[in-house]
Amino acid sequence: MRFFSDNAAPVHPAVLAAMAEADVLDTAYDGDRWSGMLDARLSALFETEVEVLWVPTGTAANCLALAALCPPHGAVLCHHDAHIQNDEGGAPEFYTHGAKLLLADGEGAKLTPDTLRALLSTIRVAVHQVQPHAISITNATEYGLTYRPDEVAAIGALAAERGLALHMDGARFANALVHADCSPADMTWRAGVTALSFGFVKNGGMGAEALVFFKRGLVEASRYRRKRAGLLFSKGRYLAAQILALLEEDRWLANARNANAGAALIAAAAGERLVHPVEANEVFLRVSAEEAAALRDKGFDFYDWGPGEARLVVSWNQRAEDIEPLAAAIAALR
Amino acid sequence: MRFFSDNAAPVHPAVLAAMAEADVLDTAYDGDRWSGMLDARLSALFETEVEVLWVPTGTAANCLALAALCPPHGAVLCHHDAHIQNDEGGAPEFYTHGAKLLLADGEGAKLTPDTLRALLSTIRVAVHQVQPHAISITNATEYGLTYRPDEVAAIGALAAERGLALHMDGARFANALVHADCSPADMTWRAGVTALSFGFVKNGGMGAEALVFFKRGLVEASRYRRKRAGLLFSKGRYLAAQILALLEEDRWLANARNANAGAALIAAAAGERLVHPVEANEVFLRVSAEEAAALRDKGFDFYDWGPGEARLVVSWNQRAEDIEPLAAAIAALR
Amino acid sequence: MRFFSDNAAPVHPAVLAAMAEADVLDTAYDGDRWSGMLDARLSALFETEVEVLWVPTGTAANCLALAALCPPHGAVLCHHDAHIQNDEGGAPEFYTHGAKLLLADGEGAKLTPDTLRALLSTIRVAVHQVQPHAISITNATEYGLTYRPDEVAAIGALAAERGLALHMDGARFANALVHADCSPADMTWRAGVTALSFGFVKNGGMGAEALVFFKRGLVEASRYRRKRAGLLFSKGRYLAAQILALLEEDRWLANARNANAGAALIAAAAGERLVHPVEANEVFLRVSAEEAAALRDKGFDFYDWGPGEARLVVSWNQRAEDIEPLAAAIAALR
Amino acid sequence: MRFFSDNAAPVHPAVLAAMAEADVLDTAYDGDRWSGMLDARLSALFETEVEVLWVPTGTAANCLALAALCPPHGAVLCHHDAHIQNDEGGAPEFYTHGAKLLLADGEGAKLTPDTLRALLSTIRVAVHQVQPHAISITNATEYGLTYRPDEVAAIGALAAERGLALHMDGARFANALVHADCSPADMTWRAGVTALSFGFVKNGGMGAEALVFFKRGLVEASRYRRKRAGLLFSKGRYLAAQILALLEEDRWLANARNANAGAALIAAAAGERLVHPVEANEVFLRVSAEEAAALRDKGFDFYDWGPGEARLVVSWNQRAEDIEPLAAAIAALR
Repeated sequence: MRFFSDNAAPVHPAVLAAMAEADVLDTAYDGDRWSGMLDARLSALFETEVEVLWVPTGTAANCLALAALCPPHGAVLCHHDAHIQNDEGGAPEFYTHGAKLLLADGEGAKLTPDTLRALLSTIRVAVHQVQPHAISITNATEYGLTYRPDEVAAIGALAAERGLALHMDGARFANALVHADCSPADMTWRAGVTALSFGFVKNGGMGAEALVFFKRGLVEASRYRRKRAGLLFSKGRYLAAQILALLEEDRWLANARNANAGAALIAAAAGERLVHPVEANEVFLRVSAEEAAALRDKGFDFYDWGPGEARLVVSWNQRAEDIEPLAAAIAALR
Repeated sequence: MRFFSDNAAPVHPAVLAAMAEADVLDTAYDGDRWSGMLDARLSALFETEVEVLWVPTGTAANCLALAALCPPHGAVLCHHDAHIQNDEGGAPEFYTHGAKLLLADGEGAKLTPDTLRALLSTIRVAVHQVQPHAISITNATEYGLTYRPDEVAAIGALAAERGLALHMDGARFANALVHADCSPADMTWRAGVTALSFGFVKNGGMGAEALVFFKRGLVEASRYRRKRAGLLFSKGRYLAAQILALLEEDRWLANARNANAGAALIAAAAGERLVHPVEANEVFLRVSAEEAAALRDKGFDFYDWGPGEARLVVSWNQRAEDIEPLAAAIAALR
Repeated sequence: MRFFSDNAAPVHPAVLAAMAEADVLDTAYDGDRWSGMLDARLSALFETEVEVLWVPTGTAANCLALAALCPPHGAVLCHHDAHIQNDEGGAPEFYTHGAKLLLADGEGAKLTPDTLRALLSTIRVAVHQVQPHAISITNATEYGLTYRPDEVAAIGALAAERGLALHMDGARFANALVHADCSPADMTWRAGVTALSFGFVKNGGMGAEALVFFKRGLVEASRYRRKRAGLLFSKGRYLAAQILALLEEDRWLANARNANAGAALIAAAAGERLVHPVEANEVFLRVSAEEAAALRDKGFDFYDWGPGEARLVVSWNQRAEDIEPLAAAIAALR
Repeated sequence: MRFFSDNAAPVHPAVLAAMAEADVLDTAYDGDRWSGMLDARLSALFETEVEVLWVPTGTAANCLALAALCPPHGAVLCHHDAHIQNDEGGAPEFYTHGAKLLLADGEGAKLTPDTLRALLSTIRVAVHQVQPHAISITNATEYGLTYRPDEVAAIGALAAERGLALHMDGARFANALVHADCSPADMTWRAGVTALSFGFVKNGGMGAEALVFFKRGLVEASRYRRKRAGLLFSKGRYLAAQILALLEEDRWLANARNANAGAALIAAAAGERLVHPVEANEVFLRVSAEEAAALRDKGFDFYDWGPGEARLVVSWNQRAEDIEPLAAAIAALR
């Protein structure tokens, strides 16, 4: 049983079905009827007029967002454990033409107004130093913690005060949202978010994410940047169809609830072993090398996460009965 | 009936079937079994050891190739009607960090050693001028002409003589190949091609192309560039599966033959109206505005291509019976 | 006697003297008193509030201007013989992060509204094509022709109509201005120029040019770009002092008048041999290889400019008595 | 009396004299006789064949070096207080097209093999993470400490072991060298340094630094990059002349010795107040706000350096009699 990541799971059956339905001739690029529905569909979801671009990967969504929010000579503030800093192979620097990521601290990869202020205080307003233009937060974070809407809003208020844009990397936005049990609007634009990378790949999609702009005037140049990055599929309808299929019948929320519930099962069994509270679908455990080996012997796969720690991620399609043996095996380690 | 382009057609049934087969958990990125088969599969096809990266779009394939072949301070020689110059939204400049495209002439968007030499003769060897590092040709060309292997080899010889790499944009490689009726090897590395953008999207694929390197030492940095461009799908197996499905049973060749045959049908009807010889699946016609309107009235859609000209492209899945009415309508214009 | 170019001449004595005067401790970068005078000095000259940055080279001035006027995904329209296209080693692409130069025609390297409109008409408004954001003209041109204020204004009107910025590469601005015998204001902002590369290096300076912004809101980011390009001298006063020294007592105009007069002397002797009218300090001659050799034998150095042509450039400091022997030698070729 | 920095001092009289001597017509760019002497002059100094480019600023030298040593998709390891990270306005990212600076720790802004190893151990060899290609150290450091040759060699050995290049930012190379009392060769290539930014601006120069390559094959592309960055002065002789003048009669060493001696005077007076040992020409003092104000009241200017600290820098031209009053004033604070 694999708990490496939620990024390689099969896709939701409704996604495959929707792609088969889209398998008809239609206008190229994003001129088709599926792509044409995205703005309205997501505007309804977010209770405000949004502008949306499909893109194939989370890295593409994040980096097109950053390029829209920060000039080449500027900086984006993020956590030192942020995905954009550590796991995107320098894509932020590629898309922004060399903007700097300036790194802040925070428990569980969460930024706070205080850690951001501490970072901001080190930057002189002078051409010698790269000036901040945006903040990027990840929700849920790289350690499976989530920001509540009020926590986002506190950062949003700081961003507004300093004239910074606010980006949310929502590769696991659904998981954060169902944990917070709030509306998409409360988690984003009402809390000051300028642009959201709305993730579907880890939520039952195949290769489609939605880049959502809450502020007017950002999508236009982003369309050019998307093309210029080789991301404009000629058969874009297959990407739009994935997003629409997961939004339909709230599948995205159900998928996230299922994954979070699986992680909660493991967390309950892990007790004191938990490195971080489990708020989404990721579990970080303290396990010795012997214990990790014992779990692997029983057929459970996962990543080591530094010495004495392991990361387990539950995917949208893993069922309680898949997870209970793992939970039991972890409990039995005690 | 749409003859706008071959880039928006539905996908081949075997492609959808292969994607459904790949809909199982496997290792992320390109660690899966489908991705793992590409190098061997294409090495067999090309009768030499090649290194292959899947990418989602033709623009991505072209521009990763150019970035591998030309430094930021260098230049790529191409035709002034090349797709990389006119239709990729500046992606070559993005991926190469600002390398220049230097533009040569040639009938039907075909370069020749002579037009390339004429261009090269204008470039002084001096830091003031951007120095050539690569040549890029498109086969079949933007006007539906093809290079024969000996024509590629003549350019390949010039490239070797001047120390330049040679890239082939093969968005319609299959169409060119079946016209030339030669082996993939003869059309590429045996003729001096360094890297090939091997197109599948216009050949029955959904969103997958193969970037093929014939020279060692180029793929390694390209892996990093692919990730850095946000092109590394976490579920790469769905891309590899598309490519493998089209190669299987020589579907890619059958699809190209069918499209070329459709274009030949139109060409036969068009006679003197042809702007260019029809060697692949594109037809350029001389038609007056009234004639174009008449064709559209009968339900045939296509692009105007400058004043008095029209472009019609036949897709992999259009059948003779779809095309005959168009051919008849064109013939009836006389 | 060297007529290779005006870019390597010694500096005006007043420039050296001013640099020696500036050889005192003052605030670093552009916080010194000389740098602090530039805005006011040039605002007076241009009869409007301008914002000015010193930079060390013409390439730096041009490319910082282009970066201020065109985003990475945009295009700059210029003549196919423009210095930014042919002689700056790809610096425009470096500074703009890969914007494209789109090339227009025109006699003597001069653009006209008609040739610009012809170029613009080839660009579809679509993400597939790089969209124009600016026009760049060179005055005096690479062939020593000049734009009159009304010619600049005609291009400025087109730029305004299409929402494009207008940059003037004024490496030889002084030479153009004295030929037109108009005010700096008439030649620039009153004719629609957004930014001017105001050249001093070819006018008796050592290594200082003025980048002049006629539109508010462009200088701020340019300050960051100047630093980011490694162009912000810590001892900037030595650059500002050069500019101020040449402006003082209208030395820049006297120097240009002298150089233009020298070229006129040659032109008068050359008669039918002239390839272009001589309006500034450059002369292009038709000479056979034998004639060129004969001139060189007499000690006159210059560049061949394609087969059967030669370029001779008169520098600010060459006196009539230096030039008369050359004029006589040319006349004697007949 | 100003102790803000050593970057704004007047230039050495020999520099001005050499520039006046170079004020004759010679070949443009670096074709002149002064530029032509640099390779041989610095090869003699470094006791090995080196290749040298003049550039106008330290930022330009550093960033051209980094661009030669690290591809756009790579990383440079440096100290978190390095000038390239904090004070060059993102120039490293501009010149390298977005390479990342990865930050290591170390007392007094000095890297050690241990802190570098700790940083390297966090980087997985995978396309998701930006891979290291070079190390950059500053000697003397931003806090006025120096690396001894054996310390450089230890880092050089690590670099060699890991296949990394080693860059030395030598904005204050002279100050470090006279402190170590070793040969330039021992401090650089014999210790594994690949490229040196050899600073002259802080050592009596006006606007010229030498970028020195100790490894073959790096200078060629750097020549193109220098042009492409707008750094290739047409009157390059005035830059080369500065460098040659400071090397002549070992003026650069005398200047550094003088500045270091001045700093030592202050250090001796400061005693317990010193934040770092004083090994070059910078002094960091613990002073209360009141004490700082008292010093300023007496006419001494300097930067606050965080709360309770001050930075004082001695320039090449400050004499003992200039400094003694400051030393006395500091001593009197006790």
